[in-house]
Amino acid sequence: MRSIVIHPPHEFRVEDRPLDTMRPGQVTVAVKAGGICGSDMHYYRHGGFGTVRVREPMVLGHEVAGEVVAVAEGASGLNVGDRVAVNPSRPCRACRYCLEGLPNHCEAMRFYGSAMPWPHVQGAFRERLVCDAGQCEAAPGDVSFEELALCEPLSVVLHGVKRAGSLLQKRVLVTGSGPIGALAVAAARHFGAEEIVVTDVAPEPLAIARRLGTDRTIDVAAQPDDLAAYAAGKGSFDILFECSGNERAIRDALPALRPRGVVVQLGLAGNEVALPLNLVVAKELALLGSFRFHEEFALAAKLIGQRRLDLSPLLTLTYPVEEAVAAFEAAGDRRTAMKVHIAFA
Amino acid sequence: MRSIVIHPPHEFRVEDRPLDTMRPGQVTVAVKAGGICGSDMHYYRHGGFGTVRVREPMVLGHEVAGEVVAVAEGASGLNVGDRVAVNPSRPCRACRYCLEGLPNHCEAMRFYGSAMPWPHVQGAFRERLVCDAGQCEAAPGDVSFEELALCEPLSVVLHGVKRAGSLLQKRVLVTGSGPIGALAVAAARHFGAEEIVVTDVAPEPLAIARRLGTDRTIDVAAQPDDLAAYAAGKGSFDILFECSGNERAIRDALPALRPRGVVVQLGLAGNEVALPLNLVVAKELALLGSFRFHEEFALAAKLIGQRRLDLSPLLTLTYPVEEAVAAFEAAGDRRTAMKVHIAFA
Amino acid sequence: MRSIVIHPPHEFRVEDRPLDTMRPGQVTVAVKAGGICGSDMHYYRHGGFGTVRVREPMVLGHEVAGEVVAVAEGASGLNVGDRVAVNPSRPCRACRYCLEGLPNHCEAMRFYGSAMPWPHVQGAFRERLVCDAGQCEAAPGDVSFEELALCEPLSVVLHGVKRAGSLLQKRVLVTGSGPIGALAVAAARHFGAEEIVVTDVAPEPLAIARRLGTDRTIDVAAQPDDLAAYAAGKGSFDILFECSGNERAIRDALPALRPRGVVVQLGLAGNEVALPLNLVVAKELALLGSFRFHEEFALAAKLIGQRRLDLSPLLTLTYPVEEAVAAFEAAGDRRTAMKVHIAFA
Amino acid sequence: MRSIVIHPPHEFRVEDRPLDTMRPGQVTVAVKAGGICGSDMHYYRHGGFGTVRVREPMVLGHEVAGEVVAVAEGASGLNVGDRVAVNPSRPCRACRYCLEGLPNHCEAMRFYGSAMPWPHVQGAFRERLVCDAGQCEAAPGDVSFEELALCEPLSVVLHGVKRAGSLLQKRVLVTGSGPIGALAVAAARHFGAEEIVVTDVAPEPLAIARRLGTDRTIDVAAQPDDLAAYAAGKGSFDILFECSGNERAIRDALPALRPRGVVVQLGLAGNEVALPLNLVVAKELALLGSFRFHEEFALAAKLIGQRRLDLSPLLTLTYPVEEAVAAFEAAGDRRTAMKVHIAFA
Repeated sequence: MRSIVIHPPHEFRVEDRPLDTMRPGQVTVAVKAGGICGSDMHYYRHGGFGTVRVREPMVLGHEVAGEVVAVAEGASGLNVGDRVAVNPSRPCRACRYCLEGLPNHCEAMRFYGSAMPWPHVQGAFRERLVCDAGQCEAAPGDVSFEELALCEPLSVVLHGVKRAGSLLQKRVLVTGSGPIGALAVAAARHFGAEEIVVTDVAPEPLAIARRLGTDRTIDVAAQPDDLAAYAAGKGSFDILFECSGNERAIRDALPALRPRGVVVQLGLAGNEVALPLNLVVAKELALLGSFRFHEEFALAAKLIGQRRLDLSPLLTLTYPVEEAVAAFEAAGDRRTAMKVHIAFA
Repeated sequence: MRSIVIHPPHEFRVEDRPLDTMRPGQVTVAVKAGGICGSDMHYYRHGGFGTVRVREPMVLGHEVAGEVVAVAEGASGLNVGDRVAVNPSRPCRACRYCLEGLPNHCEAMRFYGSAMPWPHVQGAFRERLVCDAGQCEAAPGDVSFEELALCEPLSVVLHGVKRAGSLLQKRVLVTGSGPIGALAVAAARHFGAEEIVVTDVAPEPLAIARRLGTDRTIDVAAQPDDLAAYAAGKGSFDILFECSGNERAIRDALPALRPRGVVVQLGLAGNEVALPLNLVVAKELALLGSFRFHEEFALAAKLIGQRRLDLSPLLTLTYPVEEAVAAFEAAGDRRTAMKVHIAFA
Repeated sequence: MRSIVIHPPHEFRVEDRPLDTMRPGQVTVAVKAGGICGSDMHYYRHGGFGTVRVREPMVLGHEVAGEVVAVAEGASGLNVGDRVAVNPSRPCRACRYCLEGLPNHCEAMRFYGSAMPWPHVQGAFRERLVCDAGQCEAAPGDVSFEELALCEPLSVVLHGVKRAGSLLQKRVLVTGSGPIGALAVAAARHFGAEEIVVTDVAPEPLAIARRLGTDRTIDVAAQPDDLAAYAAGKGSFDILFECSGNERAIRDALPALRPRGVVVQLGLAGNEVALPLNLVVAKELALLGSFRFHEEFALAAKLIGQRRLDLSPLLTLTYPVEEAVAAFEAAGDRRTAMKVHIAFA
Repeated sequence: MRSIVIHPPHEFRVEDRPLDTMRPGQVTVAVKAGGICGSDMHYYRHGGFGTVRVREPMVLGHEVAGEVVAVAEGASGLNVGDRVAVNPSRPCRACRYCLEGLPNHCEAMRFYGSAMPWPHVQGAFRERLVCDAGQCEAAPGDVSFEELALCEPLSVVLHGVKRAGSLLQKRVLVTGSGPIGALAVAAARHFGAEEIVVTDVAPEPLAIARRLGTDRTIDVAAQPDDLAAYAAGKGSFDILFECSGNERAIRDALPALRPRGVVVQLGLAGNEVALPLNLVVAKELALLGSFRFHEEFALAAKLIGQRRLDLSPLLTLTYPVEEAVAAFEAAGDRRTAMKVHIAFA
């Protein structure tokens, strides 16, 4: 079974791996589409991020959808042939954080394709994936596997929107129009934001954000004053979904927030980000970290599966697994690719 | 009437100023005690902070208490001889933020002794202060004027505690044991925090925090590992009252917070504070700015006036107005002075 | 100028009334459509409700839209010919509740067509209405006046949705499919509720709710077991928008809520409603009253004016002012009329 | 081992029962004091409440403290001779509500002395109790067993205070000065309520509330106008802890709440309580049910064990187990007994 594996320090291979054994309550999924995420790119390019390093061969990938090809006993509700998105979040359901209703902070989380724990948690970029039935969300046939594979990044965004609270009568700014930022635009629209403005430093991602429903796009490289104008008075926006992880983007966005404005930090940045803390104090901003998701995955599958959200503008390129390297290279160029998928046989 | 005035760029003078005219609804207060605050120190030393500069002569001071010596008609509820704390917060009560219940963000705030607006708002370090009756909170005679003058910094802290929400079953860390940090200890105890730990880099302020009810003090200069131990697992504290404004203190404290921990940022820092933003994301911390106060002043006066809070450990030194320079110099030495007051005639 | 007036005890007249004087900052609106609300019906039938009684002649009506026909100086942003919805909520902006950001609880509220204060506040069912420019929300020409007149009841519902907080991943039950219930369906959809079920005792209103986007309708008179099924386990719904004011509807709905479920009570009921309080305790339900609105009116006008919400299914009948009695009679029959409007010349 | 057992329909017996087997991780506690609760009284008098009926012999009791007399392996942290309060709340830690952080709504809760599940969950009024080490909270020797047995009702109250949120600058009304109401007074004081008023229809319980720190008591049977005065304007109190379960008490208290006031319903009432729902709507009150507790038990033990709360005024009478009937009769007379305990050998 072909899998996309990163070997330490960061050697990229498409190689054969044995199929896992299916236990009761599990299914085998023929993975059809896998979306390349920023963390996959970090493993590909650098073998990790921060203090996290690949120390043993690890299958990459956590954004996958596919077709059920085998069902063990006890895997209720699923049938061979079902098209499913697979939730990569596997909390232990027994630690203190799981029991507090915070499974994304599980002390023994086994999230696909993560080198944080030891041994590493193997990922889902492989032709056959054995997983628990409960990880699978089924969807009807008219939704492509690439769209279904967007359930994972959409879940990240839904979790962030939940952190923000109600968007009713809220003016929303989104910084960074990559996949997470673009999904934040779509989600903010879906949950009724009154106004949505999105910024980026490149025109191509902003064009996609427009198709996903933003009211306005600002190319802050070309027109920085357009954002600065929102800082007039004591600022304009109620909520900022920070999706760039870029220090300058954050610093330029904060003045555009009104007093008691809320920042939901989704973008990962370096470990040292210089922030205007006095502005946070004087405006009484609330800077809220948002990390992964869990129960939101089921909602994401419903929104995509029932076409309540049309996320097709996000889909740009799909490469066969044989061309995985090309896929990763393409995923690194924001001007040509929003979300790149790998197609398995 | 002698007043403590700063002249641009930052010349410090004790000089005579004319008495303001008393209008209906107002009273004249003979100021008895004025506490020196960090912002007073900035005007004294640097003529301002950040982009705020003294551009015309300005009376300093916003932490004062005194005795009512004259009462205009319509100043209901007050009598000559009343001992009062004076609320320096004067929002306009008509702008959008006042009407949203956020008077501390008033667009036309006239906070005593502030060079932020133009013309500057004159302060309260003067022998006679004419103010609205509604700014005065009366207290019985057995509370000293120095204690009453603590109503202002206590209000700042009460506002921060309100930002944090309930302290029930919460473990609290306070970084920085200056006047704000020490008051945060007293307030956290009063509002029922389960456990309180306070840090500083000097032993003297920590000794005062112990008298105010903290469970434990950590001298992070001498024993940095003691704080680091709280970072074990995913961290320990639910709430951090950050009262130092010191970059290193903030950075060292964040790992000691548990997932979903709340930081109430009370300390003012430079405009560039390097923060571990990825930690904020991964732990889903909430960093909440807290700025000034308004309605909390009445509560502060009740807590101090009814001796529900005994803040006398905070009082270290009082200088007569003639020795104002000595008072400001003393206020700048954290090892000998916690809160320094100036006594007016 | 013809007006619809109720005389004590509850005599209904269409009569001429003098035009009010226009002051600076005001406009004169030619009222084009006025929606009949439940409280209008109470004045019409009973001369009041509870302890509130019409004690002097009072113009009815608070759901109106029309065309600006005169503009006084200082009425910025409005021009003759503008099509506007008029906000009937006029808080004082100076009392303690206004200053707490709770203008709907204003101690001196002057809400159109209300016999609660003395003298009564005259209403808006008249050919010409003089009002503050700030009460008017303009809309483009392709939205009918009847739709614009729905801004008021939509504001009531938006306020209730705000009380409920975010609808993300929430299952919503709406009891009572009258105008408020039907608008709650539309709003719950707009703000992203995961699932919406609406109940009523008549099929006609439920048919309209279906056109507004509900997932399921239950005729609880015909199929009571369908609602009861949701009580299985510990219940199903996260949020109940109670829009019937009917004791039995409330009592039958509570078991269908899950633990920590939230009831937003929008429907007005008698003063004595027998509730299963032990169920509220055992499930830790939250029963939240929701009363009027204020700032939500601007949002309602934007949602309707920009056609983000299509509320046309609510519009059933329009009568000319000469047939006002017929309009009120029609408005009392839920099977034939959802929202009845009166057209002024 | 003598136990206090209720036999269907409601025959009360003190009888011998076999000792349970101790498993790994468990301890045996010699029960020293057991507090009689309202639900015990219902079983004693009526064999149940509402639809809950004793259908098999059931040991009563869930408020107990005692001494550890045997420790199985794996019962870490406990030693023979430890004085402990025993948490009667035993959620399954695996159902959906446990995993949402709502263990008090556990679908398989095994709360001591409850006839709700089948088979019934046997209670703790017995000479020897085998329980999990994790249920035991140790306390130092200078706290009486009767006081320790108050951990359970205090936990109920702490849970209710948590539901209310921060008490900072809040005016609190407590209706019903029985054990729960009196504990609510003590807790409201501990968590910093600005003002506390408590009502009852008998002077004796109010005298105890005064010793626990209330600012004012109102005997509403003798002086009903004293409570009514708080309804002036739009009402006075921010929070009502409703601890009587009495319809009239609730109805008389609601007008004394200010707009957006919060009712925490702790008292159990009949299944039909006639409430002024229109008042809930017009004032936008929030009526929050509060049911049992879980993690609050550890905090209760700390507050009592460290004498942060002095609850000794609550202790009125202790009877030896041989006089259990007298104890239950005494517990039914509010004028002579606040909290009655049974002493086991």
